[in-house]
Amino acid sequence: MGKKSVVLFSGGLDSTTVLAMAQSRGDEVYTLTFDYGQRHSVEVERAGRLAKEMGVKNHKVAHIDLRIFGGSSLTDDLEVAKHRKTEEMASGIPLTYVPARNTIFLSYALAYAEVLEADFIYIGVNALDYSGYPDCRPEYIQAFQTMADLAIKRAVEGRRVQIETPILMMSKKEIILAGLKLGVDYGKTHSCYDPDPEGRACGGCDSCLLRKKAFEEAGIPDPTPYA
Amino acid sequence: MGKKSVVLFSGGLDSTTVLAMAQSRGDEVYTLTFDYGQRHSVEVERAGRLAKEMGVKNHKVAHIDLRIFGGSSLTDDLEVAKHRKTEEMASGIPLTYVPARNTIFLSYALAYAEVLEADFIYIGVNALDYSGYPDCRPEYIQAFQTMADLAIKRAVEGRRVQIETPILMMSKKEIILAGLKLGVDYGKTHSCYDPDPEGRACGGCDSCLLRKKAFEEAGIPDPTPYA
Repeated sequence: MGKKSVVLFSGGLDSTTVLAMAQSRGDEVYTLTFDYGQRHSVEVERAGRLAKEMGVKNHKVAHIDLRIFGGSSLTDDLEVAKHRKTEEMASGIPLTYVPARNTIFLSYALAYAEVLEADFIYIGVNALDYSGYPDCRPEYIQAFQTMADLAIKRAVEGRRVQIETPILMMSKKEIILAGLKLGVDYGKTHSCYDPDPEGRACGGCDSCLLRKKAFEEAGIPDPTPYA
Repeated sequence: MGKKSVVLFSGGLDSTTVLAMAQSRGDEVYTLTFDYGQRHSVEVERAGRLAKEMGVKNHKVAHIDLRIFGGSSLTDDLEVAKHRKTEEMASGIPLTYVPARNTIFLSYALAYAEVLEADFIYIGVNALDYSGYPDCRPEYIQAFQTMADLAIKRAVEGRRVQIETPILMMSKKEIILAGLKLGVDYGKTHSCYDPDPEGRACGGCDSCLLRKKAFEEAGIPDPTPYA
């Protein structure tokens, strides 16, 4: 039998590909999704459905209220930027930045991994997608690993939890092609920051634009249902 | 005016002393308490009352459900160990260990500090109190700091959030004497892992025993109301 893995899973293009990768290795996979008061909370529901369809061992939703702090257009009532050019997205840290988001997500995953006695945490961070988020960089992940190795009982006793970032240095096109090979149904994944009430993608936010571009570059018809 | 500080505050002996220390420096203090499904949730209520009495700028309670993972006698329905000898407490990591607790707490504090534009996070970890928790050691705190410096926008832009651990290397006696100098009313602090319904301390859990011993060593009458 494979080892146990916790996969941080939003149901989006990146983390769904990562989930398929963990499964392809034969791991027993436990998905963890966050309901953090995000505007696009439809993703939480969809993630649960998709995880089950993909046959994970268990799926958990952690409710965390990042709205008590504020500070991001994903959790506040700020306008989500629409139809920005790739160069605009690339300049600096975007408004959709959520303070310490990956640090909080990885911390929860670390707690969960220790309780499960899991050997791996998978996270779909990507350093090349123009996002500009500081907590998607390789040096950040490395520093989190070093900290994690000192933080938990399991690691201190010699059984570390390894953080796996299989798509860290892949382009969106490479991610999509890898996922298709593993049988990922991207029509069921959800990336939009600002979906309509039925959960259909807006087609104009940074996440939708990058996703569209990725399917174009991959030469694959975009299966996303748009509003 | 002083700088802004986030103080991780449980209302216990250690974090109340740390709060008084941050205030004595002239900082504008924002306390953050966690309701994490702990058995001793009376501490959450008391912490709020005490923070207000001590005149903090703002007090927030973050609700996080660590029970979804399980794995600790503080969040599960395990028996809390009673009347253990100090040597027993010192041997290994205790049952009251909560996986990745300080990592989760510090991650939230980091998010909050970034939104507030605070320069400091205070945490009342103590390496000398026989607790055996891996996430109370200096090397852990140092690794968290390194990670934090790479994690958040503010730090990447050159304004780091500094993690302050003023009681890290102090004995319980030294902590109490320092707190009394700063006017801390220890009768209002709460340390017990297993209080009765009225919130009175059990007198027998590790936390109560260490607290009693501390007042004895400090030569100060123990002001704790016991059940």
